[in-house]
Amino acid sequence: MNDSTHPAPTPAPPGFDDVLAAAARIAPHAHATPVLRSRVLDALAGCELHFKCENLQRGGAFKFRGACNAIFSLGEEEVARGVVTQSSGNHGGAVALASRLRGTRATVVAPRSTPKVKLAAIESYGGRVVPCDTTQASRDEITAQVLAETGGVLVHPFNDPRVIAGQGTATLELLCSAPGIDAVIAPVSGGGLLSGSAIAAHGRGRDIDVFGAEPIGARDAHDSLRSGERITGRVADTVCDGLRAELGTLTFPILREHVREILLVDDAQVVAAMRLLWERMKLVVEPSGAVPLAAVLAHPQHFAGRRVGIILSGGNVDLDALPALFGRSG
Amino acid sequence: MNDSTHPAPTPAPPGFDDVLAAAARIAPHAHATPVLRSRVLDALAGCELHFKCENLQRGGAFKFRGACNAIFSLGEEEVARGVVTQSSGNHGGAVALASRLRGTRATVVAPRSTPKVKLAAIESYGGRVVPCDTTQASRDEITAQVLAETGGVLVHPFNDPRVIAGQGTATLELLCSAPGIDAVIAPVSGGGLLSGSAIAAHGRGRDIDVFGAEPIGARDAHDSLRSGERITGRVADTVCDGLRAELGTLTFPILREHVREILLVDDAQVVAAMRLLWERMKLVVEPSGAVPLAAVLAHPQHFAGRRVGIILSGGNVDLDALPALFGRSG
Repeated sequence: MNDSTHPAPTPAPPGFDDVLAAAARIAPHAHATPVLRSRVLDALAGCELHFKCENLQRGGAFKFRGACNAIFSLGEEEVARGVVTQSSGNHGGAVALASRLRGTRATVVAPRSTPKVKLAAIESYGGRVVPCDTTQASRDEITAQVLAETGGVLVHPFNDPRVIAGQGTATLELLCSAPGIDAVIAPVSGGGLLSGSAIAAHGRGRDIDVFGAEPIGARDAHDSLRSGERITGRVADTVCDGLRAELGTLTFPILREHVREILLVDDAQVVAAMRLLWERMKLVVEPSGAVPLAAVLAHPQHFAGRRVGIILSGGNVDLDALPALFGRSG
Repeated sequence: MNDSTHPAPTPAPPGFDDVLAAAARIAPHAHATPVLRSRVLDALAGCELHFKCENLQRGGAFKFRGACNAIFSLGEEEVARGVVTQSSGNHGGAVALASRLRGTRATVVAPRSTPKVKLAAIESYGGRVVPCDTTQASRDEITAQVLAETGGVLVHPFNDPRVIAGQGTATLELLCSAPGIDAVIAPVSGGGLLSGSAIAAHGRGRDIDVFGAEPIGARDAHDSLRSGERITGRVADTVCDGLRAELGTLTFPILREHVREILLVDDAQVVAAMRLLWERMKLVVEPSGAVPLAAVLAHPQHFAGRRVGIILSGGNVDLDALPALFGRSG
């Protein structure tokens, strides 16, 4: 994030108490999504998989948790000003939905490459879409313009402690449903979900390994953790339209502290995992949401014989684009 | 059914106690599937929809309940002989899976038009597939041959009280999860699921309306209930590959006693409902499984303002056939 859209200093990271408070705040609005299992996929993976179905969350993705927590945390004066965000899709829909529930307006800056189904969702919830280019610089520039024009409040998709705490509630619920879990894996893009997952998992101790999963074509989080420097300015190239952001100033240090490793997968592995989820679990999961399963299958040494929680992060996919998508897995 | 495959007189219909016994018998093996909701679909339907997700059942369909109850009811002598059935797909997979769990062999007589994914499932569970033509006469003829050759025990897909009682356990669970339900709707083909659903729904009283949902191109159940005569010998023409059977001698009188009405929908309505389930609920549901939602949307006068339980009967669909399928809904 550049200074124009994020003028305040990086806020303090949220703690486990913030995740608990978020769970209480969003409970009247969010679904407590089911945790599903599959014997077939367990056999394939050589471990016990517990799928937290955030594709079944309101708006079709975990993003509603963070957006709802942030927007229901706003004061009345902020609500009156309206909400602004930038999003490659799911966060935009979530902000639009949460804004409607709170009784305020949402403006969403979205790359022109955003899938139609995600743009339609934003508008169906009453949100206004402002297009931008796919680079982070363009996202930030247009977001700054919209903030200046509207006087709205920024609800950043990941570099916001309220958003991170909200995303962590998915893992909180997962650990309640499946208390024996000893590893959790979530996709990483800007790092909000993975940060929240880690804070929730480590809230009462450190005996759960937290992994990130990332497409090779958007491996900035992997490389940032390896190098110890937050990498910015790359252009992502992956089928995972939800995983093209880069780590934020707030999420990067949280991941450095909590995450054991970021596991990489290529797009063919992602699409194959997505197909398994559709065919064997009967769940519509978008490419980004299939990345953790792809990583478990591609890196079995980390998971053999363990009880693994997988965050199925979202299910918003253009059905008309499926033939092209599944064509990639041969 | 002709006499060759069904030599015994029609057995007595199962009662509510049989459904309760089936629930206990299959509990160690079957999933207690989730009941999911969608505000978007509620608004579209003008009623409160509670989706019983049998697409998330083992084997991808409710059929595992009935097959499991029947096969775990067999005596040791019968188990030693092996199991034979006829099926357009999901029942075959369910019988193969339940047979493997019980430690016996399954032979499945299946029409050549059966989707590849369903044939693959039968074989993946260790079942043997014997092909037949799509007519009921061909199914019965080949089934009789296989029974004679193998000495196996017939587990009929619907005209069997153990199978019907097993199918009823889905509605039993649904009514436990959502006790205020005042209408239940399930697809009808041979009538096993709908019979079991009705017996379960009416087990403790008659204040729940039970509806069937049937494609126009396979409307024998609708016409049979209207005319009071069980109609046989038609050739079905519908995208719903799971709904091409005709009512049995056992299921027909149960439906006459319990079912308020069979509601008809055309294939375009089915595919549109299926698309809604994929896009809005993120659930992979096969065409047959989308028929009840299509019926609720097409016949709103029966459901306005009510609490409606919908059995999402299965999710076994060839992903490679999707473009052709969704092309039908325009």
